[in-house]
Amino acid sequence: MNGLERIRLLSLHEKVMSAQQAIELIKDGSVVGLSGFGGAGEAKTVPLALADYAQANPLKITLATGASLGNKIDGRLNEAHAISRRYPYQADPGLRKAINNGEVMYIDQHLSEMADNIRHHNLPAMNVAIVAATAITEDGQIIPTGSCGNSANFIEMADHVIIEIDNTINPVLEGVHDIYVPKARPNRGPIPLEQAGERIGTIGIHVNPEKISAIVLNDIPDSSFGMDEPDEDTLSIAKHLIQFFEGEVAAGQLPENLGPLQSGVGSIANAVFAGFEHSNFHDLEMYSEVLQDCTFQLIDSGKMKFASGCSMTLSEPCAANVMKNFDKYKDKIVLRPQELSNNPEIIRRLGIIAINTALEFDIYGNVNSTHVTGTKMMNGIGGSGDFTRHAHIAIFVTKSIAKGGAISSVVPMVSHTDHTDHDVDIVVTEQGLADLRGLAPRERALKVIEICAHPDYRADLLSYFKRAAAKGGQTPHLLDEALSWHASFEEKGTMKTA
Amino acid sequence: MNGLERIRLLSLHEKVMSAQQAIELIKDGSVVGLSGFGGAGEAKTVPLALADYAQANPLKITLATGASLGNKIDGRLNEAHAISRRYPYQADPGLRKAINNGEVMYIDQHLSEMADNIRHHNLPAMNVAIVAATAITEDGQIIPTGSCGNSANFIEMADHVIIEIDNTINPVLEGVHDIYVPKARPNRGPIPLEQAGERIGTIGIHVNPEKISAIVLNDIPDSSFGMDEPDEDTLSIAKHLIQFFEGEVAAGQLPENLGPLQSGVGSIANAVFAGFEHSNFHDLEMYSEVLQDCTFQLIDSGKMKFASGCSMTLSEPCAANVMKNFDKYKDKIVLRPQELSNNPEIIRRLGIIAINTALEFDIYGNVNSTHVTGTKMMNGIGGSGDFTRHAHIAIFVTKSIAKGGAISSVVPMVSHTDHTDHDVDIVVTEQGLADLRGLAPRERALKVIEICAHPDYRADLLSYFKRAAAKGGQTPHLLDEALSWHASFEEKGTMKTA
Repeated sequence: MNGLERIRLLSLHEKVMSAQQAIELIKDGSVVGLSGFGGAGEAKTVPLALADYAQANPLKITLATGASLGNKIDGRLNEAHAISRRYPYQADPGLRKAINNGEVMYIDQHLSEMADNIRHHNLPAMNVAIVAATAITEDGQIIPTGSCGNSANFIEMADHVIIEIDNTINPVLEGVHDIYVPKARPNRGPIPLEQAGERIGTIGIHVNPEKISAIVLNDIPDSSFGMDEPDEDTLSIAKHLIQFFEGEVAAGQLPENLGPLQSGVGSIANAVFAGFEHSNFHDLEMYSEVLQDCTFQLIDSGKMKFASGCSMTLSEPCAANVMKNFDKYKDKIVLRPQELSNNPEIIRRLGIIAINTALEFDIYGNVNSTHVTGTKMMNGIGGSGDFTRHAHIAIFVTKSIAKGGAISSVVPMVSHTDHTDHDVDIVVTEQGLADLRGLAPRERALKVIEICAHPDYRADLLSYFKRAAAKGGQTPHLLDEALSWHASFEEKGTMKTA
Repeated sequence: MNGLERIRLLSLHEKVMSAQQAIELIKDGSVVGLSGFGGAGEAKTVPLALADYAQANPLKITLATGASLGNKIDGRLNEAHAISRRYPYQADPGLRKAINNGEVMYIDQHLSEMADNIRHHNLPAMNVAIVAATAITEDGQIIPTGSCGNSANFIEMADHVIIEIDNTINPVLEGVHDIYVPKARPNRGPIPLEQAGERIGTIGIHVNPEKISAIVLNDIPDSSFGMDEPDEDTLSIAKHLIQFFEGEVAAGQLPENLGPLQSGVGSIANAVFAGFEHSNFHDLEMYSEVLQDCTFQLIDSGKMKFASGCSMTLSEPCAANVMKNFDKYKDKIVLRPQELSNNPEIIRRLGIIAINTALEFDIYGNVNSTHVTGTKMMNGIGGSGDFTRHAHIAIFVTKSIAKGGAISSVVPMVSHTDHTDHDVDIVVTEQGLADLRGLAPRERALKVIEICAHPDYRADLLSYFKRAAAKGGQTPHLLDEALSWHASFEEKGTMKTA
């Protein structure tokens, strides 16, 4: 049977079974933890078998993961009405709809916190963990795949463990992971990581072999991710950022390699990182969540010396190239559990520059990352809060308008707050970069409107601010007008008044 | 001269001068850092001399502190129009008015972050530090007073240091402080504190004596703090909390001593801690900011074994008793710099239960700690964000109504967000305690309305939620109604519709 050779602790061969057999461990009401982060490294065969089963045999589970899942796992389970509760993050269109209809209870969480929330009883105990593995070593260590997510935590916490041996994962990945699980309180010590490129753990997840209830072989590959080419606006955003970084280095306010970088997922982030290609920066480092194509391009060009992440979410050609030439990358990347990649202790210690995408921000620098018009969940806060709160410099980027200009991404008041002005240092649109550090709200407003807002909305924002400021307050607002732009969009399909 | 005996490094005697001489170091535009936190341990003689000077000789400074100052220092400087910018926290009525009028630029910040923000160029460099001291040791260490605040950081960062020897501070305090300053990045390691009661630093602040530009003797005592007696409502809040804690311990979800406790300042916090007196809990520990009377009462009654804080803010009788019997407390308390007392790394490691006061919270558990009707600054976020984000359990307390019922503290949408629903675990009013852990927004809303809202507002809140939920969304809202309660209060003096 293809894959058995990856189970190098031979006594475990007897636990190999079909997915249909394995899912008998999962009951109606079970709390199930899945590997997977950033659409990479999720278990596939077992959850898809569960989705098929649930189509005929109604059953609802609480589903916990690292973050988003590939292969439409969330969507397939949701179509089978098999998800009653879901945390800490998702990005599936079908599940999103069910969440916004109130059919699935979605608990949107900081990615760094979920393991502690289970470990210390803020969330229910876990019944079954289903974790994808590249291999099981001779001494029984579970080697993760293209993501670490919460896999090590789930294996430690769950009553039953199902391992999915993923035959599609190139075995060269063995050695790239750095598995470290903080102790439960009150016996927890400092996390000894002091540099982005250090290793503090093991290459695999230690588990008592008796805890493994089933092993299933999987032949479904990870999803691949298309990457939008940068457009004029995302290139402008990248240009503003590079100029800002150059200025800070010239002023002696940032080290020459900027310090470790974190970046959210998506085309703007990719454009920003592409911008580094043509910059004079060198010896760049990442301490981030998702390593995208751009990470490997910067390593290829010699600009980046090290990248620490929680997952690799790559396009098909990039993945093929990385696997083919893995020797070149092996000592330049590391994948860690999200409890480490997103850990506040480490983020503040290292002094990370965090670049994340906003859905909208307001004139005072409060950011909405999650809720369209304040009510409809898009994906979730993900790691943006972990990084933004603790970054040396916390940056949010977005295009100044959306939907052909019907939406201004710069608004009088955000319709939902994920990141408060205390935490947001810099906001950037294609119009420009507003450095808000050390500014009071009234100063921030003028700068955000002047520099970041689209010209079509600038006068209206300024009018709002001036009328509000005349009424007074540290953070001037007109309460009966503050959310009227969003209400107008809901009603008339545009935020524009004229 | 009274106080010279406290300057035990004799070579420093030559630097003793009058406050009027010392303030010559301060220029128009200077960035000045003052000791002081929670109204305790601020320098007094020098800043008050500066206020007098500025009355006749116009001058504006940027004023940084630990947190709030006693002795109306903020008020007196503000009356002299001597403050142009202020951070990270204040609690003075006169300065508050100037801030809300837009005359003083106020940068409200997480208390744990300010030192790093100066150290790493997110805020301007510091020109002069003015730090109160109990004594200067033979080897030149500066022994802080009743607070540590940012004193050690300011002394390290400022171009010039003015020490105010505070003759009113009982010398027994020498030895109670634990001074540790994290290294600048990129050479920062873990903070080695693993238990609330450990010491990791020195008893005083190390400084090159040549950096001390002036020493001034002070005879003005710290302000004393009156303490409201608990009323029926605060006692109910305390009762709900104690019951919750008892339930968690019984369920094996909290250790028998609950783990380290943090509490905000004020009468509700005092009532909660008074509630512990009559509970069965023992071996309690605090890892908090401000140690109030209640801390020492719990030590007296044998309920609390250790308390770590950043300052002692006591009533006059309590202060007199503590100083008289300091030997009894000496091995049971420690005062640390706010970079440590409020440090996310330590808060998450220790697993703190954080109890802070909300101005208002909404049906989804978002909390406003700072802005009255969304615009007018009350004091500032202080340490509430440092603790709330990283606590094992983050709790907010408030009375369900204010201003004789004209204001509901439970609202459809907070008018300003300081803490998002991601971070808030439990909300409590005199009506009851809503445990929101593991719940989605729609579930949170029903629980908050049912359990915490005042009966006068419950039906209106439920009506709002039901109509919003019918429109859909993860976090249902009616955008044209969400802030109407606050607008109604501004217009008509009440949130009540009928």
